[in-house]
Amino acid sequence: MGTKSKVEPRLLKGMRDFLPNEMLAREWVINTIKVIFEKYGFEPLETPAIEYLDILEGKAGEEEKLMYRFKDAGGRDVGLRFDLTVPLSRVIAMNPNLPMPFRRYQIQPVWRAEKPQKGRFREFYQCDVDIVGTASVFADAEIVGITKEVLTTLGFKKFKIRINNRKILKAICEYAGVDPSKESSVCISIDKLEKVGIDGVEKELLQRGVPIDSVQSLFKLLSDFQQRSSSENIIHKLGSSLASIKNGEEGVAELESIFSYLDLLGVPKDCLSFDPWLTRGLDYYTGPIFEVVVEEPKIGSLAGGGRYDKLIGIFLGKDVPAVGITIGLERIITVMEEFNMLPEQITKVKVLIVQFDEETLGYSLDIAKRLRTAGIEAEVYPEPVKLSKQFKYADRRKIRLVIVAGPDERAEDKVTIKDMKSGKQKKIERHRLVTEIKNLCQ
Amino acid sequence: MGTKSKVEPRLLKGMRDFLPNEMLAREWVINTIKVIFEKYGFEPLETPAIEYLDILEGKAGEEEKLMYRFKDAGGRDVGLRFDLTVPLSRVIAMNPNLPMPFRRYQIQPVWRAEKPQKGRFREFYQCDVDIVGTASVFADAEIVGITKEVLTTLGFKKFKIRINNRKILKAICEYAGVDPSKESSVCISIDKLEKVGIDGVEKELLQRGVPIDSVQSLFKLLSDFQQRSSSENIIHKLGSSLASIKNGEEGVAELESIFSYLDLLGVPKDCLSFDPWLTRGLDYYTGPIFEVVVEEPKIGSLAGGGRYDKLIGIFLGKDVPAVGITIGLERIITVMEEFNMLPEQITKVKVLIVQFDEETLGYSLDIAKRLRTAGIEAEVYPEPVKLSKQFKYADRRKIRLVIVAGPDERAEDKVTIKDMKSGKQKKIERHRLVTEIKNLCQ
Repeated sequence: MGTKSKVEPRLLKGMRDFLPNEMLAREWVINTIKVIFEKYGFEPLETPAIEYLDILEGKAGEEEKLMYRFKDAGGRDVGLRFDLTVPLSRVIAMNPNLPMPFRRYQIQPVWRAEKPQKGRFREFYQCDVDIVGTASVFADAEIVGITKEVLTTLGFKKFKIRINNRKILKAICEYAGVDPSKESSVCISIDKLEKVGIDGVEKELLQRGVPIDSVQSLFKLLSDFQQRSSSENIIHKLGSSLASIKNGEEGVAELESIFSYLDLLGVPKDCLSFDPWLTRGLDYYTGPIFEVVVEEPKIGSLAGGGRYDKLIGIFLGKDVPAVGITIGLERIITVMEEFNMLPEQITKVKVLIVQFDEETLGYSLDIAKRLRTAGIEAEVYPEPVKLSKQFKYADRRKIRLVIVAGPDERAEDKVTIKDMKSGKQKKIERHRLVTEIKNLCQ
Repeated sequence: MGTKSKVEPRLLKGMRDFLPNEMLAREWVINTIKVIFEKYGFEPLETPAIEYLDILEGKAGEEEKLMYRFKDAGGRDVGLRFDLTVPLSRVIAMNPNLPMPFRRYQIQPVWRAEKPQKGRFREFYQCDVDIVGTASVFADAEIVGITKEVLTTLGFKKFKIRINNRKILKAICEYAGVDPSKESSVCISIDKLEKVGIDGVEKELLQRGVPIDSVQSLFKLLSDFQQRSSSENIIHKLGSSLASIKNGEEGVAELESIFSYLDLLGVPKDCLSFDPWLTRGLDYYTGPIFEVVVEEPKIGSLAGGGRYDKLIGIFLGKDVPAVGITIGLERIITVMEEFNMLPEQITKVKVLIVQFDEETLGYSLDIAKRLRTAGIEAEVYPEPVKLSKQFKYADRRKIRLVIVAGPDERAEDKVTIKDMKSGKQKKIERHRLVTEIKNLCQ
């Protein structure tokens, strides 16, 4: 500390500070989400930021390339968590006596060295909700239903929850005669359909070594789906095309169940769509998969998830079925900012009590104590500087009420309250303070 | 995911998972602390986990040796934050237009590669509260007062807030003729007084090259303090011993002010003690310093802080006065666990609705919806397995009430509620559901 050479204050690319006004908005969103998770019987879990590298690696596919990895002081290979599903799976394996089904939510930051872009950062919060220990697709439907309730409660009106099943993707590949080793290549190409169009996907599939016959079969199915409007119609059509393929039969039956459970759960049809071309990036999904998108702004998916019945087995040695979804807090907030959906909450502080002089400080502190005891956020200015400076501070902080309790007020056992919004001020008895402030704050 | 070779599920040393029951206790403590911070007008801030290394380095002294540091994918030297004071100082320098005084709290994990021991981990939460932009020691007193309120509200009864001033330590060194370059050596040795006793400190000081005369002067002062009981007496005595030394005069005046403000703030004298040998580890303190200790269990300090008027200047190029304290969440919780001070809260979930069969699922989901709309946490079992299994699950989860809404109940427009605590069960009309559950949960 002896030297005075200045260190340039700066943030790493893709990293952010959240100042109080941003924090208040973020906390409002997080709290809204938590309350819904808890209403459905989910409970919180937290896991450490740093894990052994072999815990994190080899589970998710492409996304884990972006992981922050390094050697710790003891020379161990470690990484920062890049999602919350892999840590949950490790927790389940380490705690075999947890009551099952285990319903947990987890809201923590994750780290990925992504190219920063709109709504995409290198440190970002995920809100995960998962049900572990049941193979029933009622759980899948409940996860989708909760996601719908979260979005609706936050004020989202136009969004689509796209639903598919990895088993159907497998069956389509089998139907089209694609070699099983090429399945994930096909998924990656198909995932680009919206971006590059049918011709682009066709070209890529051929480049990846998928035979022309298979490509044509795939597009025959694709065009069938595009001619049919409702999810039910497409599922029905698929059911007959894939009837003889085990994965197809199972996948279709699961989807039919999910859509009928979603109906019972009161999720309106118009926010759901069956999308046989939805693939999701992560390797660990084994069954139904979901993704939430909005048309505006262009920002990628707001949430994504699915069933991963084989992931926990990697740690436990025997499989435990599980399903869940990740709600991407940053994208949710980016959209809410863009459409002015966040509550305007500049500060929680309702009252500033000015510091008049040393003499009356005790009187002012008594006022502060009365307010705080009544649960009212009240701040005392830390120095007896000019009143104009203290009022200006209240104004800049957007604090609604300013109290002066100087020598005159003390002599009369009163306080002066100034309403910064209306500009009005009045002097009242000290014992009426709490009632008066509560009235003014309403 | 093709291979089935098991990955051993395990945690790095000093890292922890928090399962739901632990999370509920932690959230209760954090929320209690947040409410108090907010009552005093503090607002939340968050900063990223990863910072440029030069932002973090060279500010705190010894403690930063434990920092996790590595190169990111772009080859930049980075580190994980090891405290919340250095990031705050960077934020202040990057946001020169924040209204001052700036009152922020920050509750986030930090990382230090410490030797794990009781109440000490490698990832742990700190709860920081700071006032930036005022040199008035009223702010210092307020920080101490808030810390006292936090501890009292959490149920702590026996604790001491030790207070000193770096200026006094400097003045004592000057008084004893210690070379200014040896000041921090003296502090480090003196800090071990409780551990190694007077003889141990004396030996170490001589080893560190402090002349025998100076050591004797130091111990002369020390024995003076030990003969005087009250903080006021010691401060008074110091005031006369150090009267001719500028740092001593200032330090004593500041302490006198702080103690008189603490009196006005209603902080009882018996939990405060002036301790001229308190040093605190961090290099960046410039004025008053504080530390909270409990006698039992032996666990180090629960909170520590002080004034750091030169730290922001490193980033901004000009000094901004600041004071704050760090409340160590993990130690607080360790003590609260040991003394059974945490609330017993196994689950927030109040109701389990069994899944009777496919037929009646819609009826059960209507029950769930009514409860959730009324704000009651209610979980639906995800599969129509044997009722005995579903009841057993409720029992293991410690869910108080189980609702059966099967074919009989549906035919009568009723539900059966079983109270798992009393073992009693009754059948009631569906429309009385919410009222009845609210009564039972009280």
